[in-house]
Amino acid sequence: MFNVAILGATGAVGQTMIKVLEERNFPIDNIKFLASERSAGKEIEYYGMKYKVEPVSEEAFEGIDIALFSAGGERSKKWAPVAVSKGAIVIDNSSAFRMENDVPLVVPEVNPEDVKWHKGIIANPNCSTIQMVVALYPIHQRKKIKRIFVSTYQAVSGAGATAIEDLEMETKARFEGKYYYPKALPTHIAFNVIPRIDNFEPNGYTKEEMKMINETRKIMHAPDIKVSPTCVRVPVYIGHSETVVIETEEPITVEEAREILSKAPGVILEDDPFNNVYPTPIEVAGKDDVFVGRIRKDTAFDNGLSMWIVADNLRKGAATNAVQIAELLIKYQLIKK
Amino acid sequence: MFNVAILGATGAVGQTMIKVLEERNFPIDNIKFLASERSAGKEIEYYGMKYKVEPVSEEAFEGIDIALFSAGGERSKKWAPVAVSKGAIVIDNSSAFRMENDVPLVVPEVNPEDVKWHKGIIANPNCSTIQMVVALYPIHQRKKIKRIFVSTYQAVSGAGATAIEDLEMETKARFEGKYYYPKALPTHIAFNVIPRIDNFEPNGYTKEEMKMINETRKIMHAPDIKVSPTCVRVPVYIGHSETVVIETEEPITVEEAREILSKAPGVILEDDPFNNVYPTPIEVAGKDDVFVGRIRKDTAFDNGLSMWIVADNLRKGAATNAVQIAELLIKYQLIKK
Repeated sequence: MFNVAILGATGAVGQTMIKVLEERNFPIDNIKFLASERSAGKEIEYYGMKYKVEPVSEEAFEGIDIALFSAGGERSKKWAPVAVSKGAIVIDNSSAFRMENDVPLVVPEVNPEDVKWHKGIIANPNCSTIQMVVALYPIHQRKKIKRIFVSTYQAVSGAGATAIEDLEMETKARFEGKYYYPKALPTHIAFNVIPRIDNFEPNGYTKEEMKMINETRKIMHAPDIKVSPTCVRVPVYIGHSETVVIETEEPITVEEAREILSKAPGVILEDDPFNNVYPTPIEVAGKDDVFVGRIRKDTAFDNGLSMWIVADNLRKGAATNAVQIAELLIKYQLIKK
Repeated sequence: MFNVAILGATGAVGQTMIKVLEERNFPIDNIKFLASERSAGKEIEYYGMKYKVEPVSEEAFEGIDIALFSAGGERSKKWAPVAVSKGAIVIDNSSAFRMENDVPLVVPEVNPEDVKWHKGIIANPNCSTIQMVVALYPIHQRKKIKRIFVSTYQAVSGAGATAIEDLEMETKARFEGKYYYPKALPTHIAFNVIPRIDNFEPNGYTKEEMKMINETRKIMHAPDIKVSPTCVRVPVYIGHSETVVIETEEPITVEEAREILSKAPGVILEDDPFNNVYPTPIEVAGKDDVFVGRIRKDTAFDNGLSMWIVADNLRKGAATNAVQIAELLIKYQLIKK
């Protein structure tokens, strides 16, 4: 049994982490909910009991075995080393440490063994990247992937609780003939799509897009794989969708891909177009798996496949993956009690 | 001055055709609004005058010079030959004749001269295809394009007036905690995305996707160009968006592409990411041009570019393009009066 702390417990991902820990009966001795001063004092329910959110501090990590962080990059940079110095292992959902050489970046279905070389911090990857590699890695193991073209349809919950409010408030305002300008998104989101997630880098790609390039390579141990991403926000609450085209070194048939994915860990194949079966975000919200449909031979590559990948960005894209990493620590006996 | 008939005058595209004819001061002598028996009798305003919609019939095309059709493929198949037999030139917005060898498929910015070999019917291309070729053809003329990867974010108005109602009604129902199932769309559209537009072909692609492959080749006179499309419906009323990656035969820089597109007919470059400038459907709705932003070097091809293309699907994607074709008939003196 372990002592667990959640930093950012009141956020969209933090709330989902609490649900996922409950659902999976994670072996918890004591649990502690931490947040910034602003959110401290709020009440959180866990297994029917009410807990007060405590302000994060050095002392708060005393005796903690596992600390799940989802409070943004700045807080992670500040508090992760503190938690580690107190003996905790930090599983961090921010991008702060993901590309550090001494920090494993882990998707349990892809590179579980990487948790073994952690030095106190294990990074949880970007949501769009997680669902893509869960679906592509099993294919890559059988038929090496050379190039990936991905366009995302990302839910507002990926930008946090305020962005969820933005979608709700702006949509209602439109119906009432009123004007509302989003607080957490770069432009209008009601009945609109936005080709920008996070800030732009000098090369014209957004940080979100660069994450998809760099994190995919690190997680899949495939430094040469080429990734061409465009990340787009859509007016959906929960569930990221992706159109993905891959070019493989050798030919691969649709039947082979379906067979591989039907046995792949964490993947649910929902691919029967003639019976109108393909995943959509509304149906996938609240589920922990990665859903794949519309697998077909690509029309632009000799050795290529097209597909459609959907997952709950708060669950597999964040909270569930983080809790799965914590479960790996127990499985590999990297943490004791 | 010409006698013009609009078949499907009460539909989403038909209504926009009327607006566009007014805005462009198309030289009209008499105008006639036609529709199925169901819509006949409705009133339509044109230049401040009220007109009754007439039921379509053989006699209705008597004396008509130009007939703009937007009433679905079945009605086009039935009535286009009739209108032609009465001496009209039909500009047809359905997919009924687009791939016929003796029917030109025309985007005025790309292949205007093709109107010259018409035999009575000229086809107006698919909405998603029009906006893509307007942006890509000027690049293709300078640096031959080998492959195109496109993912669409298509507005519900592309599926007609009932689909517009579906988005409105289902979104409102969600806010009221009620259940609504769309009538004109294959599954839920409120706060959801649907990776299916039109029916599936045996190869797993939808008809909409096959249109993007086949029509692009015909319009651009590029039978060898490879197109890999995924067409997705999003909860947007008006304005289709597209992520597009191209591979060119020779290298092309972002600067070259921007220079080409800044001078391209029918294209507006809105590409200044560091000042948060890129097109989105809400801003583009009601405009006649094709808007391009987020041009950047592609990260998966040596000779490649990524970009974001947005246009009003009812205007440039349908009505405006059809009226521009009618204007070409006058310009090339293919029609007299």
